[in-house]
Amino acid sequence: MSYKQMTAADIAALRELIGDDERVFAGEEIHEDYSHDELGGTVHYPDIVLRVLSAEEVAAVMRYASREHIPVTPRGAGTGLVGAAVAAEGGILLDMSLMNRFLELDEDNLTLTVEPGVLLMEIYAYVEEKGFFYPPDPGEKSATIGGNVSTNAGGMRAVKYGVTRDYVRGLEVVLPNGEIVTFGGKVVKNSSGYSMKDLIVGSEGTLGVVTKIILKLLPLPKRTVSLLVPFPSLRDAINTVPLIVRSKAAPTAVEFMEREVILDAEQYLGKKFPDHSADAYLILKFDGPSLEQIERDYEGVARLCLEQGALDVLISDTEERDESIWKARGAFLEAIRGSTDEMDEVDVVVPRGSINRMVAYIHALQSELGVRIKSFGHAGDGNLHAYILRDGREEDEWQRILHLAMEKIYAEANVLRGQVSGEHGIGYAKRPYLRESLEPQVLELMRGVKRAFDPENILNPHKVCGL
Amino acid sequence: MSYKQMTAADIAALRELIGDDERVFAGEEIHEDYSHDELGGTVHYPDIVLRVLSAEEVAAVMRYASREHIPVTPRGAGTGLVGAAVAAEGGILLDMSLMNRFLELDEDNLTLTVEPGVLLMEIYAYVEEKGFFYPPDPGEKSATIGGNVSTNAGGMRAVKYGVTRDYVRGLEVVLPNGEIVTFGGKVVKNSSGYSMKDLIVGSEGTLGVVTKIILKLLPLPKRTVSLLVPFPSLRDAINTVPLIVRSKAAPTAVEFMEREVILDAEQYLGKKFPDHSADAYLILKFDGPSLEQIERDYEGVARLCLEQGALDVLISDTEERDESIWKARGAFLEAIRGSTDEMDEVDVVVPRGSINRMVAYIHALQSELGVRIKSFGHAGDGNLHAYILRDGREEDEWQRILHLAMEKIYAEANVLRGQVSGEHGIGYAKRPYLRESLEPQVLELMRGVKRAFDPENILNPHKVCGL
Repeated sequence: MSYKQMTAADIAALRELIGDDERVFAGEEIHEDYSHDELGGTVHYPDIVLRVLSAEEVAAVMRYASREHIPVTPRGAGTGLVGAAVAAEGGILLDMSLMNRFLELDEDNLTLTVEPGVLLMEIYAYVEEKGFFYPPDPGEKSATIGGNVSTNAGGMRAVKYGVTRDYVRGLEVVLPNGEIVTFGGKVVKNSSGYSMKDLIVGSEGTLGVVTKIILKLLPLPKRTVSLLVPFPSLRDAINTVPLIVRSKAAPTAVEFMEREVILDAEQYLGKKFPDHSADAYLILKFDGPSLEQIERDYEGVARLCLEQGALDVLISDTEERDESIWKARGAFLEAIRGSTDEMDEVDVVVPRGSINRMVAYIHALQSELGVRIKSFGHAGDGNLHAYILRDGREEDEWQRILHLAMEKIYAEANVLRGQVSGEHGIGYAKRPYLRESLEPQVLELMRGVKRAFDPENILNPHKVCGL
Repeated sequence: MSYKQMTAADIAALRELIGDDERVFAGEEIHEDYSHDELGGTVHYPDIVLRVLSAEEVAAVMRYASREHIPVTPRGAGTGLVGAAVAAEGGILLDMSLMNRFLELDEDNLTLTVEPGVLLMEIYAYVEEKGFFYPPDPGEKSATIGGNVSTNAGGMRAVKYGVTRDYVRGLEVVLPNGEIVTFGGKVVKNSSGYSMKDLIVGSEGTLGVVTKIILKLLPLPKRTVSLLVPFPSLRDAINTVPLIVRSKAAPTAVEFMEREVILDAEQYLGKKFPDHSADAYLILKFDGPSLEQIERDYEGVARLCLEQGALDVLISDTEERDESIWKARGAFLEAIRGSTDEMDEVDVVVPRGSINRMVAYIHALQSELGVRIKSFGHAGDGNLHAYILRDGREEDEWQRILHLAMEKIYAEANVLRGQVSGEHGIGYAKRPYLRESLEPQVLELMRGVKRAFDPENILNPHKVCGL
């Protein structure tokens, strides 16, 4: 694949196209942040950064890039973990973060229309104040909704409410050739041709640039209650999860964590966690129309946990107590990162009934390989985040042990009929593992879809299934 | 597009491939049922019908058809309404209805794995006995689940629970070239490349032949209550629907009907409907963990209906009473069909907040065009079924008035930012309307996707976006 090397004339043409020097950075003006994402494993500078303001600007840029054969990479808040928003071939980086307007709250249709640069935390604040609920709940609240759509972000409430895909009703998308199209709309049902909207969701900016999003909202649940359940061992905690699923209770979230990750989080936050007594914890959330109803829902689960050896079941039905639990949970990624010099992650997902086997496997892998691996995650939906820590190793040794650990974890996920990524995506970093996990015909079909959208391979090359 | 005219040698080769004469019909042996679907507007005989038993048989047929350039059309129970399962170019009709085994109920993962020929009513019976719930609830319970996946069938409970797409976790699919692949799996989350599973759902047998389906189940709600709400006029009834949506109540279903459709249904069933007092009705369903909770949920809605002029709110919390209401609702299509000599349908969907405008438009169209149009539908999700009745017209006049009515209804749906089909699909009959409603670039993208899956255009040609 060879692209045009950008010239001074290209830079000048794009500057003119945007017409506002404060929204264009080229060469030395480009901040280091634009060369990587949150995890930093993939590093490459674009030739130019354009902070676009509208679909029309995006379209004009895409037309130019198409004509000149210059690669374009869209970027939200840069909170990704797999290098999807890194300009692997240089060229143009489209910074979407200024397209951050709330366009419409439609109370007749229970939809919210936003631009892609709106942050997740801004969406929560906006809709909850008005009695609405946007259920997807990824850990990183400063991600953009455009990034969430592009990775099909999941989060903690997926156990009960599903993932981002389930809340995207319609999209405005700029195609690689610069045409602006609409997929879906405000309609609740749609059987009018192939679901192009569902192709875009999770495509990590490789098929089109999302410029408008229509989200489905729910009424805000009246009450929530959290349970913090300490267990004497990780094994006891995690073995309880499939039983909870099987019990047909409908928790909103079921997370697991180990004491050492909690200690990291306490240090990071400078705040104490409500309990220290145990080696491992489950935290569960329930929501519903009344406290009585929620009590009926969690009663059986609490009993089940105690039968399985839980040391206690701590009920948190006040906002303050809730916050101390969930704030710690929200800080895990940063806290783990603070405990080492470098790390990389896996985001495997396995059938929820097999989450205990996956967690046990990774736990055992630490002593087998002599490497620290910290894990936490969405036990209730089978999605596990495991971080492999460098801990001062020399580069060669770090690469060796990292790849070995990853190969082994993905192989085990495969045995359990899992998938490479539950919610973080494939981006640049996970491509070899996606390739290994897919049937060759499926990879070829994905590439055929990519060609249908982007025959010149201009948009975010090398990512997901790309060459 | 020209295909090979099937020869006696082809027929013999396919007979040998299946190896069981009772599962092969050619020429004169082909029953008339195989030449059309439920509505009968599209009629064409295949050259051969193969009642396949396994993915391997489907794969062998596809390999043969690919090599010989013979078109293949998959067919479930033939309950479709748009000609998707009619062999428009002749060739091979794959009757999937014998692939009707329940393969696995996985209680650890809350999934059910079935072959595509299992009937919807069989799924309900199977899972509900075990305390599980498969929410999609299309009117036609004798459809196959494969057909439901292929059209992304919706149904009445979509208001609260979503559509078939939302309950498909994984698919086994035979590609046009005969390769057997898997998309998705039992996992709850998945961000591992483009969602090919979501491309197949709703693709009406044009991208691959579905041979296995992994469905997501929910716990069965403990109680349900229905409300039958008579209104003095259609206008009063239907204008109440957006207010119900806006009130943030969460009904399971909100259907509307007019008295004359009810009278047709009574005649068809030979059974009385619980109420005759009114011109129009809303029927609502609520479900939940207890009667008290459900009462709290519907209280506000009942009050709202009365404020909007409802004549009464009849509460049905016994199975017998419920049955008399929903049985009538289930018989509407057959009942309307029994009231005329021929009919055709539209299945438009509009944003739910605009359903009252769409219903009023169609109602007024009857006198404008001097044709009977009977409508009913899923008021709560904006999906309306309207049947245009021939009532003994001469062929020319019938075609004229039918096309005029359809053009007008689709144009109005377009004004309201709706879509051509909410749940019945496009198939053969609705292609011109899909073409008109889509941006040309979107149609071209769909065709690009089709080419990626089926470069020889062997599988179900002419359907959806096909040439």
